[in-house]
Amino acid sequence: MDNLYVIKIGGNIIDDDEKLKLFLRSFASIKSNKILVHGGGKLATKLADTLGVQQKLIDGRRITGAETLKIVTMVYAGYINKNIVSQLQSKNCNAIGLCGDDAKIIQAHKRIHPSIDYGFVGDIDKVNAEQLKQLINSGLTPIIAPITSDSEGQLLNTNADTIAQEIAKAMCEYYNVQLIYSFEKSGVLLDVNDENSVIKKLTPQYYHELNTPLQGMGAKIFAGMIPKIDNAFAALNSGVKKVIIGNAEKLNDLINNSAGTTITNE
Amino acid sequence: MDNLYVIKIGGNIIDDDEKLKLFLRSFASIKSNKILVHGGGKLATKLADTLGVQQKLIDGRRITGAETLKIVTMVYAGYINKNIVSQLQSKNCNAIGLCGDDAKIIQAHKRIHPSIDYGFVGDIDKVNAEQLKQLINSGLTPIIAPITSDSEGQLLNTNADTIAQEIAKAMCEYYNVQLIYSFEKSGVLLDVNDENSVIKKLTPQYYHELNTPLQGMGAKIFAGMIPKIDNAFAALNSGVKKVIIGNAEKLNDLINNSAGTTITNE
Repeated sequence: MDNLYVIKIGGNIIDDDEKLKLFLRSFASIKSNKILVHGGGKLATKLADTLGVQQKLIDGRRITGAETLKIVTMVYAGYINKNIVSQLQSKNCNAIGLCGDDAKIIQAHKRIHPSIDYGFVGDIDKVNAEQLKQLINSGLTPIIAPITSDSEGQLLNTNADTIAQEIAKAMCEYYNVQLIYSFEKSGVLLDVNDENSVIKKLTPQYYHELNTPLQGMGAKIFAGMIPKIDNAFAALNSGVKKVIIGNAEKLNDLINNSAGTTITNE
Repeated sequence: MDNLYVIKIGGNIIDDDEKLKLFLRSFASIKSNKILVHGGGKLATKLADTLGVQQKLIDGRRITGAETLKIVTMVYAGYINKNIVSQLQSKNCNAIGLCGDDAKIIQAHKRIHPSIDYGFVGDIDKVNAEQLKQLINSGLTPIIAPITSDSEGQLLNTNADTIAQEIAKAMCEYYNVQLIYSFEKSGVLLDVNDENSVIKKLTPQYYHELNTPLQGMGAKIFAGMIPKIDNAFAALNSGVKKVIIGNAEKLNDLINNSAGTTITNE
């Protein structure tokens, strides 16, 4: 099977024109098959502020009212996605910007929660791996914005980390998949205050040890990293070969395994 | 050769949720190959007003400064395009939203004009008909937003009528192409004040007669219609079989030739 990199680029890099440009240059230079999933950055929040639309977050997830949905659709699917695609095209990467509803690559439904109304937030039912493979086979590089829709045509704001994970899992049917979460941090840090304390390799056993404070490892893994790591292990258990977490400015090193944290079952 | 309809939907319909919904239902029901090109509507102007970005128009073309470009990219490529795609998907039309830079379907350059600086406005160099054909052959229906980019990755605001015309012309290599300009009017009117005065068939000879007031035809073709008609004849001269101009609410009738104005060389 061919290799496929599913790469998530985080918000802080998207907010920084220069860093984004360098990241996209590295991304364009990857010879293997690749898919980019991008988050939102601060632009949506800024636009909402300017327009006087109040933002609410619960557990890091944006509560998406009708006005907020309009804003994130404009910013994620419009401004950010098209800027990334046009920059990649200028670097000879034949990018195609997609949301979940384009070519029906992702089917989702509005989140149902017993106590919290998340608003127009999507949970993923299914990734159309065959359609993505078809686009890739025809020489295209999918660039995916975190907007999906339900079967009734309702747009839904959807977590980009989850989209990357679900795509990576689904694509295992056709490719050797590596999932890369790239952002502003160097990787999973043993000590959240020390950027040099990157854990090079994280196995389930080691993670279990780190998460057992009584064993005296003294690890201070940033709480915000825990869902990413849990997602990573879930992805590995669904067939993804390797999950790499690290600095978007070192994308080539992440791919070469010379930077970041590699999460693996072995 | 197979038939292909290239259909442009105008701004006034896009601004009206109910009319847009009905239009999209008709569009989804077309059995032949089809491409939809959409304009912008008033949402971009409204958003610019709210954000305090002043809008300037010269000859009906928006002067596109950096802030306006951001707004039209968000509104056209984000909000409008994704809403159309998700509605079509819910009607079993496998739509895919695209700008010019996606899959490099349109190459453009920033408009150069001896006296007017249009800002970030694009003129089209080339339509990638082969790529569009490939997408159509794989069962997809392209939905095109009027944003293109130049070879350096600069996004450009681009006239949707022109995009529809250029796509129609380029696709003649592979299809029997009919170009439909659908909007809020019933067609080309003999008397601009009488919606019942639709000219059913417009040939170059008849048009010439209408445009020669001394011959006493008394025609009052709305001046805003002239560029559309000129574009239509240019399209016919480049191989397009038929150009139809008419009411978006009667899309099926336009296709059946029972409504609107058919522009033809014969």
